[in-house]
Amino acid sequence: MPQIVTAALIVIGNEILSGRTRDANLQYIAKRLNDSGVRLNEVRVVADGEAAIAEAVNALRATYDYVFTTGGIGPTHDDITAASVAKAFGVPVERNPKAVARLEGFYAGGELEINEARLGMADMPAGAELIDNPVSGAPGFSIENVFVFAGVPNIMQAMFEGVRHRIVGGAPMRSRTIAVDLPEGAIAAALAAVEERHEGVEIGSYPYYRSRTFGVKLVLRSIDEARLAAATDDLARALTELGGAPVEEDESKAGG
Amino acid sequence: MPQIVTAALIVIGNEILSGRTRDANLQYIAKRLNDSGVRLNEVRVVADGEAAIAEAVNALRATYDYVFTTGGIGPTHDDITAASVAKAFGVPVERNPKAVARLEGFYAGGELEINEARLGMADMPAGAELIDNPVSGAPGFSIENVFVFAGVPNIMQAMFEGVRHRIVGGAPMRSRTIAVDLPEGAIAAALAAVEERHEGVEIGSYPYYRSRTFGVKLVLRSIDEARLAAATDDLARALTELGGAPVEEDESKAGG
Repeated sequence: MPQIVTAALIVIGNEILSGRTRDANLQYIAKRLNDSGVRLNEVRVVADGEAAIAEAVNALRATYDYVFTTGGIGPTHDDITAASVAKAFGVPVERNPKAVARLEGFYAGGELEINEARLGMADMPAGAELIDNPVSGAPGFSIENVFVFAGVPNIMQAMFEGVRHRIVGGAPMRSRTIAVDLPEGAIAAALAAVEERHEGVEIGSYPYYRSRTFGVKLVLRSIDEARLAAATDDLARALTELGGAPVEEDESKAGG
Repeated sequence: MPQIVTAALIVIGNEILSGRTRDANLQYIAKRLNDSGVRLNEVRVVADGEAAIAEAVNALRATYDYVFTTGGIGPTHDDITAASVAKAFGVPVERNPKAVARLEGFYAGGELEINEARLGMADMPAGAELIDNPVSGAPGFSIENVFVFAGVPNIMQAMFEGVRHRIVGGAPMRSRTIAVDLPEGAIAAALAAVEERHEGVEIGSYPYYRSRTFGVKLVLRSIDEARLAAATDDLARALTELGGAPVEEDESKAGG
């Protein structure tokens, strides 16, 4: 069996849990991990609390190959991710000299001055490695298999791309999608039979209702391209037999 | 102290974890719970796997007052939420006669026929209570403090509104938001001092970068309106002293 590499994401932020802000990072990270042959298996959204963050970090880093966190690494009192991750690892928080140097370099000659709050962004768990922040200076960090990113989407994305070469993926998950103009309840038995016949292929079924018509998108996923192709052909045939007109969607547009 | 009522949400779906679909339910549930005086404290997105779902249900139902799940209650092989919740509670799955009656009523006289796959949507944990589905017939269900909804947003929303009267909230969380044209790093010390002075008020700090300007939105939250007002005034004064021009935002537009 090819190796399956897994990951989890911890979204840190009261503003997501209150409904004020809609998370914009999950989908980006999910797709990019998928491209890298890493399967995102779990996401937790937790409040800005040291105990909640530390507990999630410890539960997930023991279970998955990689853990990513977004949010809570700015200069204000509610930015407690670094302290929480240190607590999870049982290591002290230290002012990282390389991070101080980057912050000093970023603020030198600009409009903004470095101060104690900004220097606080260099406080990290002992032993952390920096993650570059080309957008706003303050670096993220990694410790063992945990990668700590900013929450602001463009900064998070720059940080992710900066560490992508350090993420060793397994066999990439491939997918194909068939849309069909039949209701889910009419194809359920055929669907289960097709999945049963093709080991190593998972089929997800996502019904939709649009402008008074209903249909289903069927997403086939496998790390084995030949099995995926055989299952896709088999499914299309079964759907046609049920009176449907299956259409394969362009995966490059579907993403993921 | 007024009572704090808490909740957690479990989003069930491989399609969210693969990045193919962007979750549309978290924000709706977060806002509506907030309106009901219930604080959403944690969200987990888990894969379509019985063990993963059951583990999340058991961890969260023991910790929070209410648990909501979205997704995985349709007629196909990947719809395993009912079986997983039954497993979590250690009860058998049974075909619920009231749910069968609703499905028969829904399909009677329509274009679609009832079949074994559709009847399977009446299989629920023993002892479950039905949650009405005015959109597509197949009911959700609740068992103890766990509420199981569909994943399709308009169905989920109808189900949520149908059970909202059963959710007993505590003191509603009130919030006020100040936007200021200062960088986060310049206000961090003042912000921490204001929060320190006003017990029972939390201040969240959310920087933004737009068209080459930066600023911060400061969200003050409390269940005590008088304390919230005092903290908001104090914060506005502190920001003005730092040279900023704080502007209060209209909460009815901000939501949450």
